[in-house]
Amino acid sequence: MYRSHTCGELRQNHCNETVTLSGWVQKSRDKGFMIWVDLRDRYGITQLMFDEERTPKEMMEKAKTLGREFVIQVTGNVIERVSKNPNLPTGDIEILVTELNILNDSLVPPFTIEDETDGGEDLRMKYRYLDIRRNPVRENLIFRHKVTMAVRNYLSNLDFVEVETPYLIKSTPEGARDFVVPSRMNEGQFYALPQSPQTFKQLLMVGGMDKYFQIVKCFRDEDLRADRQPEFTQIDCEMAFVEQEDILNAFEGLTRHLLKEINNVEIGDFPRMTYDDAMKRYGNDKPDIRFGMEFGELNEVAQHKDFNVFNQAELVVGIAIPEGNSYSRKEIDKLIDWVRRPQVGALGMVYARCNDDGTYKSSVDKFYDQDDLAKWAEKTGAKAGDLICVLSGETNKVRAQLSALRMEVAERKGLRKSNEFAPLWVIDFPLLEWDEDTERYHAMHHPFTSPKPGQIELLDSKPGEVKANAYDLVLNGNEIGGGSIRIHDKETQAIMLRHLGFSEEEAVAQFGFLMDAFQFGAPPHGGLAFGLDRLVSILGGQETIRDFIAFPKNNSGRDVMIDAPSPIDKLQLDELSLALNLKS
Amino acid sequence: MYRSHTCGELRQNHCNETVTLSGWVQKSRDKGFMIWVDLRDRYGITQLMFDEERTPKEMMEKAKTLGREFVIQVTGNVIERVSKNPNLPTGDIEILVTELNILNDSLVPPFTIEDETDGGEDLRMKYRYLDIRRNPVRENLIFRHKVTMAVRNYLSNLDFVEVETPYLIKSTPEGARDFVVPSRMNEGQFYALPQSPQTFKQLLMVGGMDKYFQIVKCFRDEDLRADRQPEFTQIDCEMAFVEQEDILNAFEGLTRHLLKEINNVEIGDFPRMTYDDAMKRYGNDKPDIRFGMEFGELNEVAQHKDFNVFNQAELVVGIAIPEGNSYSRKEIDKLIDWVRRPQVGALGMVYARCNDDGTYKSSVDKFYDQDDLAKWAEKTGAKAGDLICVLSGETNKVRAQLSALRMEVAERKGLRKSNEFAPLWVIDFPLLEWDEDTERYHAMHHPFTSPKPGQIELLDSKPGEVKANAYDLVLNGNEIGGGSIRIHDKETQAIMLRHLGFSEEEAVAQFGFLMDAFQFGAPPHGGLAFGLDRLVSILGGQETIRDFIAFPKNNSGRDVMIDAPSPIDKLQLDELSLALNLKS
Repeated sequence: MYRSHTCGELRQNHCNETVTLSGWVQKSRDKGFMIWVDLRDRYGITQLMFDEERTPKEMMEKAKTLGREFVIQVTGNVIERVSKNPNLPTGDIEILVTELNILNDSLVPPFTIEDETDGGEDLRMKYRYLDIRRNPVRENLIFRHKVTMAVRNYLSNLDFVEVETPYLIKSTPEGARDFVVPSRMNEGQFYALPQSPQTFKQLLMVGGMDKYFQIVKCFRDEDLRADRQPEFTQIDCEMAFVEQEDILNAFEGLTRHLLKEINNVEIGDFPRMTYDDAMKRYGNDKPDIRFGMEFGELNEVAQHKDFNVFNQAELVVGIAIPEGNSYSRKEIDKLIDWVRRPQVGALGMVYARCNDDGTYKSSVDKFYDQDDLAKWAEKTGAKAGDLICVLSGETNKVRAQLSALRMEVAERKGLRKSNEFAPLWVIDFPLLEWDEDTERYHAMHHPFTSPKPGQIELLDSKPGEVKANAYDLVLNGNEIGGGSIRIHDKETQAIMLRHLGFSEEEAVAQFGFLMDAFQFGAPPHGGLAFGLDRLVSILGGQETIRDFIAFPKNNSGRDVMIDAPSPIDKLQLDELSLALNLKS
Repeated sequence: MYRSHTCGELRQNHCNETVTLSGWVQKSRDKGFMIWVDLRDRYGITQLMFDEERTPKEMMEKAKTLGREFVIQVTGNVIERVSKNPNLPTGDIEILVTELNILNDSLVPPFTIEDETDGGEDLRMKYRYLDIRRNPVRENLIFRHKVTMAVRNYLSNLDFVEVETPYLIKSTPEGARDFVVPSRMNEGQFYALPQSPQTFKQLLMVGGMDKYFQIVKCFRDEDLRADRQPEFTQIDCEMAFVEQEDILNAFEGLTRHLLKEINNVEIGDFPRMTYDDAMKRYGNDKPDIRFGMEFGELNEVAQHKDFNVFNQAELVVGIAIPEGNSYSRKEIDKLIDWVRRPQVGALGMVYARCNDDGTYKSSVDKFYDQDDLAKWAEKTGAKAGDLICVLSGETNKVRAQLSALRMEVAERKGLRKSNEFAPLWVIDFPLLEWDEDTERYHAMHHPFTSPKPGQIELLDSKPGEVKANAYDLVLNGNEIGGGSIRIHDKETQAIMLRHLGFSEEEAVAQFGFLMDAFQFGAPPHGGLAFGLDRLVSILGGQETIRDFIAFPKNNSGRDVMIDAPSPIDKLQLDELSLALNLKS
């Protein structure tokens, strides 16, 4: 037996007990005649004590050799501390050691095992097993576990059944790029790793499972952006005999439960907003509504003068930065520089200061008088002391630019409070979106999403206007979940695939099994998937998902700790009937 | 809203209520003036009723069109049945339908959706979504969910943390064959899918997670035997600061909890048996101890006569089949034929009948007298009325043969009762086993298993005799779990890898990250993994794991429903810098 207690559990009432502890040496202070060692395990820190008077000389010598991160086992007596440490749960006591057993020594770790470490990202990832010893990382992983347990128990209590779907499935060209897995037993053929269990969960609905969920790894071979992982985890859910309203209620319930159980925050009914509205009011289909700065569209009140930049723009739109009039000219110039960065892409920014005396001072005073600017203030909700920022251009682009500015300003002003939670349903998404690269319409959600009733006829005439039974759950400006009511009849699915550019043969080859299934009594069904990594990081009040993943990959998709991916033996390639065909 | 109630919940006290139900037409009986329809969903069956007197003519006509597996929604009044069906929870009531809505029609399914279906295995797999509609399959999947929830809640309550480990890892030649995943972003390099999260869970222990578990998919690209799947699920567990005793107690606790919670069976302390003992007494490292028929070794009492077959054998060993003397000569001949099948491989079988009068009659009476046979009876524990079956030959082979016979006889005699549970720890496994094909020792468990204290010195002189801190949990003759105390220092790990034939360079290339980790204060640790598919099927009282997997693959590793694996586009291959190199 390596221990009688953990390093987090001894209290005053344990005094005079003989205990055995095991753990890591967090630090040791050697005063010559006395040595204190902080012994750490997952559960806490307990102070060990060796002293000249009571500790045998030999053990005293041994204690002096203990370095950081040595693994030791000690037996000793719990004694009351002379100077207590109120910041430590075990701070009332210490252990007078009677036996010391060095279980393993340690090289000096490449970074400090402290809450605030001196290790950079790369070093931390290479030695992730040491990084995980740090409280913040360990606590994040335990937090993630708590969230998944809460999800599972909640859904299970509502009769949802967790069903494991296969990982070795079939590659489909629609959507993102698949990771593929060569099959040795089926020469020249490949499995694909699932981008999501989408078709399988629909087949489970056809199979009468009624309520399904699964916390499941998914895979996308995409060029990685910051904070994207090639493998990620979803809470994948599906229900049969449901309308959109049923789905929204079910998963609003789950989210509310998590906020209460995990964050102790009570939230009432989640607001809902159409996609069109979200784009109009926030320039964004996942608006952060923890703060205001809603868009004010200014075409009506800004296109009647000689300012050609605005007159030629498809959209003139502004926001009012609260108390933004306090910005110096220099600060405003920096803001203008910021929106002109290539990542944002605005050509410039017009602004109007709202003075305390009710007057306005704008960067375009030449064109607009006080009455004009008063109307801008009205449209953007600006009050005295605010700063109105106006962008103009092609609608979609200018909305994205102004949304970026809105988020940046909120960030700078501390309006994105990590302990404040503002969920929002965004509904009525378009069914299709135009893709500039391939010059055709793609499914905005996926090819199995159903159009709104009566809109399927528009697919031919106005495909971009067809709305879908699709919805996203947004939390604090992040999409944490999304889903739709699915198509459940073969004819509609065939029409949909045709509109997405599938020939009839391709449709059958890729999705024949699903359309076959729809012919044998498919029930109406729909669902939703949460991005677990993102959800957990937001509930945890943090921004980066990587800190909630035990062994994340870097932006090249590499695990730098185990050094994967890596070359494989020629023998392995031969067995798979493959040869390398390197470009470089 | 598609339903106010499910098809399993209406009772007498709902009479006179107006309800809405949705589901599948299980069957319909049309008496002309009256039509009854059994409406089915996941939760049960409710009888619908249409009658000439009360149902509008139009709806009556519509009801006549309902075919098997049509999906319908009905509204109607709950009424008391005239002739109640006590076999159905909803058998007291029926619904007099006032609204009938056909949600989807159905082709005639290729097999009947009944508990006992007329569909063969192949057809059921191709239309698995219809197979899942059948009660036994659906109940198995729900049962699996209950087991995993029980596992998760039990372990979580004991402070185990479920941590997700990566699926895209590194290929290692040791062990079974990996499935590999070409990396597009790292040209010419490959990930491997994990055969188990072994090294990651050990790194979590190095990282101080202390108690880890994960219910996780694992992958092995092996030629499939019956009831093996290329992807399978493990309950993977690991603990730090533990000895073997701690691990056995922890997971004996889990197993006992499952037997109580899931099967309502109370089991005391699990018996323990060494590997050597199991082989000697049952010829098998996973003995089924629900019944006797222990081996009696007969060398001493059978090698003193002129029967050369026995005299030349390394081992002569027998079992007593209870009441086997009732077998006719023909039945015994069949048994002999059975052990001579190539799958078993015995050359022949000697038998001795134990007559009720205390005499014996053997197939080798020419060589052995009554006194000899009495000693055989004593060694095998045979009583009057039993049949002693004796095999002989090379120890390992003859043990395997007799074990096969023992299991076969038990199966035929109904001694393998699916509702009886006999767990057993098999401990003290050998560290290494000789592999005939490669003519070298392999790790019996895996290269991270620690030898018993003080035995590492034997590695050079008597490698086959070194015992490991390795253990299996056996339930009803199946290995449901196995694990070991791990090596946790770099030197021992290096010695172990050297003995497994790794060069120093290979050891560093494959497992350098682990041995590095061991230098930074690795705690003593160990663990165990349960095979979930097998565990669930045994708890469920069934033999085949396939019925507890939603979408299993066939023996060629194919998913016949979605038709995977399948060829991929040349474009995909090009992106991965791969070319096919077909042998055929």
